[in-house]
Amino acid sequence: MVQLGLVGLGKMGYNMRERLRAAGHEVVGYDRNPDVTDVGTLADLVSTLDAPRIIWVMVPAGEATSQTVKEFSELLSEGDLLIDGGNSRYTDDKVNGDLLAAQGIGYIDAGVSGGVWGKDNGYGLMVGGAKADVERALPIFDALRPEGPREEGFSHAGPVGAGHFAKMVHNGIEYGVMQAYAEGFELLEAANVVEDVPAVIKGWQRGTVVRSWLLDLLVRALDEDPELDDLEGYVEDSGEGRWTLEEAINNAVPAPVISAALFARFASRQEDSAAMRAVAALRNQFGGHAVRKADE
Amino acid sequence: MVQLGLVGLGKMGYNMRERLRAAGHEVVGYDRNPDVTDVGTLADLVSTLDAPRIIWVMVPAGEATSQTVKEFSELLSEGDLLIDGGNSRYTDDKVNGDLLAAQGIGYIDAGVSGGVWGKDNGYGLMVGGAKADVERALPIFDALRPEGPREEGFSHAGPVGAGHFAKMVHNGIEYGVMQAYAEGFELLEAANVVEDVPAVIKGWQRGTVVRSWLLDLLVRALDEDPELDDLEGYVEDSGEGRWTLEEAINNAVPAPVISAALFARFASRQEDSAAMRAVAALRNQFGGHAVRKADE
Amino acid sequence: MVQLGLVGLGKMGYNMRERLRAAGHEVVGYDRNPDVTDVGTLADLVSTLDAPRIIWVMVPAGEATSQTVKEFSELLSEGDLLIDGGNSRYTDDKVNGDLLAAQGIGYIDAGVSGGVWGKDNGYGLMVGGAKADVERALPIFDALRPEGPREEGFSHAGPVGAGHFAKMVHNGIEYGVMQAYAEGFELLEAANVVEDVPAVIKGWQRGTVVRSWLLDLLVRALDEDPELDDLEGYVEDSGEGRWTLEEAINNAVPAPVISAALFARFASRQEDSAAMRAVAALRNQFGGHAVRKADE
Amino acid sequence: MVQLGLVGLGKMGYNMRERLRAAGHEVVGYDRNPDVTDVGTLADLVSTLDAPRIIWVMVPAGEATSQTVKEFSELLSEGDLLIDGGNSRYTDDKVNGDLLAAQGIGYIDAGVSGGVWGKDNGYGLMVGGAKADVERALPIFDALRPEGPREEGFSHAGPVGAGHFAKMVHNGIEYGVMQAYAEGFELLEAANVVEDVPAVIKGWQRGTVVRSWLLDLLVRALDEDPELDDLEGYVEDSGEGRWTLEEAINNAVPAPVISAALFARFASRQEDSAAMRAVAALRNQFGGHAVRKADE
Repeated sequence: MVQLGLVGLGKMGYNMRERLRAAGHEVVGYDRNPDVTDVGTLADLVSTLDAPRIIWVMVPAGEATSQTVKEFSELLSEGDLLIDGGNSRYTDDKVNGDLLAAQGIGYIDAGVSGGVWGKDNGYGLMVGGAKADVERALPIFDALRPEGPREEGFSHAGPVGAGHFAKMVHNGIEYGVMQAYAEGFELLEAANVVEDVPAVIKGWQRGTVVRSWLLDLLVRALDEDPELDDLEGYVEDSGEGRWTLEEAINNAVPAPVISAALFARFASRQEDSAAMRAVAALRNQFGGHAVRKADE
Repeated sequence: MVQLGLVGLGKMGYNMRERLRAAGHEVVGYDRNPDVTDVGTLADLVSTLDAPRIIWVMVPAGEATSQTVKEFSELLSEGDLLIDGGNSRYTDDKVNGDLLAAQGIGYIDAGVSGGVWGKDNGYGLMVGGAKADVERALPIFDALRPEGPREEGFSHAGPVGAGHFAKMVHNGIEYGVMQAYAEGFELLEAANVVEDVPAVIKGWQRGTVVRSWLLDLLVRALDEDPELDDLEGYVEDSGEGRWTLEEAINNAVPAPVISAALFARFASRQEDSAAMRAVAALRNQFGGHAVRKADE
Repeated sequence: MVQLGLVGLGKMGYNMRERLRAAGHEVVGYDRNPDVTDVGTLADLVSTLDAPRIIWVMVPAGEATSQTVKEFSELLSEGDLLIDGGNSRYTDDKVNGDLLAAQGIGYIDAGVSGGVWGKDNGYGLMVGGAKADVERALPIFDALRPEGPREEGFSHAGPVGAGHFAKMVHNGIEYGVMQAYAEGFELLEAANVVEDVPAVIKGWQRGTVVRSWLLDLLVRALDEDPELDDLEGYVEDSGEGRWTLEEAINNAVPAPVISAALFARFASRQEDSAAMRAVAALRNQFGGHAVRKADE
Repeated sequence: MVQLGLVGLGKMGYNMRERLRAAGHEVVGYDRNPDVTDVGTLADLVSTLDAPRIIWVMVPAGEATSQTVKEFSELLSEGDLLIDGGNSRYTDDKVNGDLLAAQGIGYIDAGVSGGVWGKDNGYGLMVGGAKADVERALPIFDALRPEGPREEGFSHAGPVGAGHFAKMVHNGIEYGVMQAYAEGFELLEAANVVEDVPAVIKGWQRGTVVRSWLLDLLVRALDEDPELDDLEGYVEDSGEGRWTLEEAINNAVPAPVISAALFARFASRQEDSAAMRAVAALRNQFGGHAVRKADE
């Protein structure tokens, strides 16, 4: 059993503390929210833990993570290890890892997948860092990952940054897979050939080529709301899809499916499209085609 | 100077009659609308013209055109010539042409581009049919096409069907080109780096790589409505874009740009997207991500 | 236990006969290949079975299936039932079903998914037809479908045609899902950030959002050939992807992901692209940009 | 008549010197190539010009331009003006402009379109910078831009950066427009319905909706090589297309056409696609579908 400091007890971090404790590990959690934190400050957290320490940071990617790493670079000691389990961009890992390395503090970037289901099912993990650091943290990874062979729910992807890069690509794929199901769902709904769309999708769960966990979730959603009309077709995106596309551009990799999935989300959030106003205006100019006036 | 029967005096046909008459040709027009027609019935039209006759049909593609051709197959005589100038699908030309050929009546399919501007500027023409038929109708084509070298505004594309196939592809290209300008316009508007978007687009009319007639029309539209916000981003499609994509599928030709332009039009007409409701539902299922309820 | 005539003992049909027999059903198989057939002719097959008969047709979609149905419309008797388990286009079902209905013969269209794995795992089934016909064939469907709750591996999608429509959409989704994984794989390979790409993908099998049966198969493929360089990036398509896109067009449903996946397959089969020659020629014309000569 | 220092006498800069001199301006050119340069060093260039000076920099975007600006920040004097006419990313303009502003040196970013045709036809210009700087450089812009109304070939897009942003979007649009024509060309070639593809495209130059300068160039290319088979479908990209897509991502603007055009170029340069190897492998895994071995 190991001892771990866990920073950030939101939706993900809170559940991870539960899962780690259930596995018998000692977890000291810190959060700004006094209702869930175990200690008052990051300094308290550090002093509570026995050196050499392991800290798992689970706060929003970007500024919040960078700031937390900066604070730990001053609080931790040589030989300690910090794991960033958030959805950081892999290019941030180099900066954060170097800052800690200058103090002799180890760094691992851990991509974590599984959402709210991870608490019970385990989280899919892909990590980047030095081999010795990864081995040291293995008991934690083993507690967080799903049951079954370790290599089916965990990978050591490569050096610092590789874990978050792998997670970024995972999420890019996720965008594309979700959009594929979504287009199929819309076509089934629109064509009126299939009478019982939810039954068809439910019937794809076993034996078919498209069976997947996401399909199981779609079935769950349809069980609750058979035409999915309790909600709007309004979809946020949270960074990894954009980054995946940017990396595709940087590496000259065609990514038509992932980009289409991202653009569909952008479009879903527009009340009206400037581009399509331009197309409407052009058709009106050359062909006298009717347009819809904005106040109609 | 030649004599011509012209059936269908809508937006396009009416203007064509004007242009043909201005060129000195004798045009007898027929339309169901008594305000614009020159004769009372198709039979009147046929009896008014001297054999061998030339008839130009300019009615909506599909059922209306097929019906008109069928009526003419009974009214016309051997040696007459019928030209379908509408936006017919090229596969209809084979049927219509064969029907007439069985009566010894010639058939030309003519793709006509230029919209409401054609009356003054001339129409771009691409025709399919037998060489002798095309040569016989050349005075008409010369009157309709723009000034300048014939081969820059007119082509004999091949046998029956080739004219409408060429026009179909022309329109598929048009979808893609319009969408390219539209995406650029939206990005200029959204990014807030360029202060005077209409001025930039106006300034693209001379010397740039993207100068075109469609760009000139976009400038016209922006002159009237600088942010194009008098109208909605709601865009119809009228057949040729769909057919182009279907032919791309039939011929295993990748058509990512033309399909993207068509799908953008489909999406522009949706109040809400079933596909994006499915994506929103999935994100909610796995990550507990917030969704917008339909009644918010 | 029921008795069944099974026509077409290729890769799919052969396995299905095995699975049905293992479940205790009596299967009389027919194939043109004398090595695998149980009877010499379709007429033999019909005379071997007790009326009312059930025939499962498992031959290539299109002409072969239509021809087989036509032959059975003359061989079968009122009260018999024919099930088309091939990958027929759903519009064929109406024709085939009507032909048989005129003789009082029932018709079910059955979409079958699962590939070579179906023999052991069971096949995902989605069927269209009259309720009474479907209930009559239920023992066969139950033997073919995977273990577990019936509704998770089987659906009665609607009237004749609905089964193949559902299967068509299933396959369209499959195209998109496969392409999403494929783009992610290429990006992982190209970016050189992740050191052990097969380990990362293997590690996605449990706990992650993108876990699926197709992912399991990708892991299998990578186990055999870690960089997938024993084979070419040349991918056939077999109809359903094209049909899905055509139905999306017909129903004005945006399908950017499914179309992108289909076009990627088209492009994968081109040695050289006429479109890209045109782009290269244009760049050369306006910018004097270098081109690659065809004989370089 | 004004005096101008012009740095970079490659394909573009050399022609611009010709055009400016033909308009009566005094141009002192500098290039590392002794065959074309007028002076030996940048310092010579600066000392040759009368203060306050105007310098036009026309060197490759990125490192070369930044380095040149840095050198001029040390050589020029307060009141001088530097114009970057290269294809710099608009985010570089802020850096370069600030560096010069700190020395009291003015800065304009000028997007220049027109390629090798600009020497005779004039260049489309879109510039960013302070109003006073732009007015000061107007005689130069007027000499470079095409004849006709100034606002049709020139725009003051906004503050520093806006000129290159406008040029970036211009090029993004260009990618999409070229790809639209290219897809149409490939479909005409593949379908074998049109007999004389070059004649059809030549016939689109007048009267049609798709007439444009790029179409004229396609006609030129087809005049030289009617099936465009002297060259390969291999297409480079030079930055602006990628940047346009990155800005679309940053601004949540759907850009399906521009991205498809960029990805088509990426794919055109791949001998074999890792993504499509993955799809082939998957099809083989689930369906036993044949694959092409790499050594076939």
